[in-house]
Amino acid sequence: MKLTKETIVSLIDHKDYRRLQSLLARENEADIAEVTDELNSERAITTFRLLPKDRAAEVFAILSPEHRQSIINSITDKELQGILNDMFIDDAVDVIEELPAGIVRRVLENTDPQTRRLINRFLKYPEDSAGSIMTAEYIGLKKHMTVSNCFDYIRAHAITSETIYTCYVTNDTRQIEGVVTIKDLFLADDDAVIADIMDTNVITAHTHDDREAVVDMLNKYDFLSLPVVDNEDRLVGIITIDDALDVMEQEATEDFEKMAAMAPSERPYLRTNAFALAKNRILWLAVLMFADMIAGIILHRYEEAFQAIPLLVSFIPMLIDTGGNAGSQSATMIIRGMAVGEITLKDFFRVVFKEFQVGLLTGSVLVLINYIRLSIMYPGKTMIILTIILSIYIIVILSKMLGAVLPMIAKACHVDPAIMAAPMIATIVDGLGLLLYFELATFLLHL
Amino acid sequence: MKLTKETIVSLIDHKDYRRLQSLLARENEADIAEVTDELNSERAITTFRLLPKDRAAEVFAILSPEHRQSIINSITDKELQGILNDMFIDDAVDVIEELPAGIVRRVLENTDPQTRRLINRFLKYPEDSAGSIMTAEYIGLKKHMTVSNCFDYIRAHAITSETIYTCYVTNDTRQIEGVVTIKDLFLADDDAVIADIMDTNVITAHTHDDREAVVDMLNKYDFLSLPVVDNEDRLVGIITIDDALDVMEQEATEDFEKMAAMAPSERPYLRTNAFALAKNRILWLAVLMFADMIAGIILHRYEEAFQAIPLLVSFIPMLIDTGGNAGSQSATMIIRGMAVGEITLKDFFRVVFKEFQVGLLTGSVLVLINYIRLSIMYPGKTMIILTIILSIYIIVILSKMLGAVLPMIAKACHVDPAIMAAPMIATIVDGLGLLLYFELATFLLHL
Repeated sequence: MKLTKETIVSLIDHKDYRRLQSLLARENEADIAEVTDELNSERAITTFRLLPKDRAAEVFAILSPEHRQSIINSITDKELQGILNDMFIDDAVDVIEELPAGIVRRVLENTDPQTRRLINRFLKYPEDSAGSIMTAEYIGLKKHMTVSNCFDYIRAHAITSETIYTCYVTNDTRQIEGVVTIKDLFLADDDAVIADIMDTNVITAHTHDDREAVVDMLNKYDFLSLPVVDNEDRLVGIITIDDALDVMEQEATEDFEKMAAMAPSERPYLRTNAFALAKNRILWLAVLMFADMIAGIILHRYEEAFQAIPLLVSFIPMLIDTGGNAGSQSATMIIRGMAVGEITLKDFFRVVFKEFQVGLLTGSVLVLINYIRLSIMYPGKTMIILTIILSIYIIVILSKMLGAVLPMIAKACHVDPAIMAAPMIATIVDGLGLLLYFELATFLLHL
Repeated sequence: MKLTKETIVSLIDHKDYRRLQSLLARENEADIAEVTDELNSERAITTFRLLPKDRAAEVFAILSPEHRQSIINSITDKELQGILNDMFIDDAVDVIEELPAGIVRRVLENTDPQTRRLINRFLKYPEDSAGSIMTAEYIGLKKHMTVSNCFDYIRAHAITSETIYTCYVTNDTRQIEGVVTIKDLFLADDDAVIADIMDTNVITAHTHDDREAVVDMLNKYDFLSLPVVDNEDRLVGIITIDDALDVMEQEATEDFEKMAAMAPSERPYLRTNAFALAKNRILWLAVLMFADMIAGIILHRYEEAFQAIPLLVSFIPMLIDTGGNAGSQSATMIIRGMAVGEITLKDFFRVVFKEFQVGLLTGSVLVLINYIRLSIMYPGKTMIILTIILSIYIIVILSKMLGAVLPMIAKACHVDPAIMAAPMIATIVDGLGLLLYFELATFLLHL
């Protein structure tokens, strides 16, 4: 029997709870949550109730917020307490952040005082900070312990720790003194002392660090977890690599959205209604539309020029689109390069010079293509052809350089460089490109 | 003393190798590789030679290809052999793939026969497949072993395994029968038998699976590693989560590049020369420029219309840019949604209807803004204003729907949906939008 929506629906409808229970007992939590999310809320609650006790909390943590809320509404305070105490703090905090205020109170009242204190502290960390994605459950060792002491300690605490693979050694005031992996412990003698085998070069994050920086660190060092310290350098939690994977995916999605002139979305696309989607998109659409008025005003100024030679108008889409595309290619490379930490502000001149070269190269090819095509289509109109290919050349080089310069200037001014992506670059290039085109036309064609 | 480029340069110039050696002995491999990459090749070789034997292979694996090549050229066959045998297969394969053919032969001659066979097998897996990113070094257990047998086995094999945290249980023909984590072993009694504690619901990837799918699985299940099986279902390797993090970053970068109309880059931006950058960008620039000819031909057809009312030309940038922006917002959401597996083809009608609604909503707002502005700027020109706001409305709705439909059609045709991103959508919307605009103008203004 396979775990599918249809299987569950049929088992519930036939009240065959025993078979459903045994099916659920052997499936992976992520698969159970995925299928449960497809059920209506009544069947989801039934399924949830049939889960083995030890897996309920884990499934609960990855269910959709809607289903979590209906489950909370359907269970007793006692049951809720059980689930919350089984959850890791970071998951519990994520759950709580999505609940309406009334339910949050009920949830907090049902956790033990220590967990409640922890949750309240975690809720205070700024969004997108290291503190907001860390977990409090880690293995903390002392440096005078022997390897076999450590194994006993880990054995006793394995269930309540999110990861046991990297252990942190702290002093009495909870400052980190070293780090050992389980692998280190296995490779050492049983009576070796931690102080002798631990690595004292500990790389830490701070609770208020940006979560993106933390992911970059985990990625750079290939760690399974990273310790997080507070202002007094005390170890307060760890960030595990599986959370880093989620953060990396979310951050990339946010960048995609911002670079396409949208406000980042709060929830998955299919679970966002049209009003919320429209709200995220309308501001930039309106701002960029207004900015396009400048291009309109420029065109208005040259009405006489294109009334004399109407053919000039035909090349407007090609000129402004090519400029926009050329600029957005550069901007995308630079913004992404800065996001993954590969390009920094001190590379400014190197980057601008490189884009200038790329502009010269790509511009030359486009000029050649246009020269051939225009010579065939409009034989004899030498000066018009010259106007167009000169415009293309300058616009491509200019766009390439603007695409490099503007995101880096934004970064230097502590503005998100993603603002300076394709839509904004295209709008700026529109105005500049049209001005250049008609100035060249007026001059070369004596208009 | 801190590990910086300047420190190393000064220590080498003063021939103070002892202090450099002790500095290197206590720093993290990733930091050492980062700083070494900033040195010239001569100093990089000196630094590399001063590394403790047990860290040389790891630093070597993360150095830049240029430095790796100069190091290989400067060391003896014996030394090279030592480094290669210390490396994990997946790293060794990555190194080899970047080397010139002559050096590859020398490298392969200097590995032991078993490693050479493995490397040759790995080199045959298709690029971007699970096989190409997996490693062969894992802990393989047998189901009749007891927990304490396992601990002994792990202790003996910890050094040569990339990760010891998830162990796979295989039968005599190397098919996977179950999986146990170190955590499971810690929580079990010493004399418990693996068959009783292993999880038999093993989730596997196939050597030829796309590496993106593998990353999605690791992300979904929060595993630290995923076993990879061949056509006969035999375990041939594992993919660890730190490699998944790299793949996720690379895949997102590739999508950014493709969505900005570029061929994906092979190397980091700063290490790519202008010719290679230009080569990646020119094809799409030229294709889109050609496609813009259609918009040009449409404009050419309506020369009489804008000669009668030149004002019509002023609104061209606004109309085509707004259409392009509206469409690229939708396309970005849909392409990204499909990339992270949140939107599938069976959501087609839901997505298109949603974007239709978003088009209605955002279109209405933009119409209102334009109506107010145009009524102030061009009082009395009712029919021109009507032409423009009607065009905006239809163009926005159309663009939103095209932005949703085209990437999904691409996906259905097994074409990369990223092709149907901003640049392509904008070009298509240009042509359609201008046709609509001038048809409306001809009709409403009796041109």
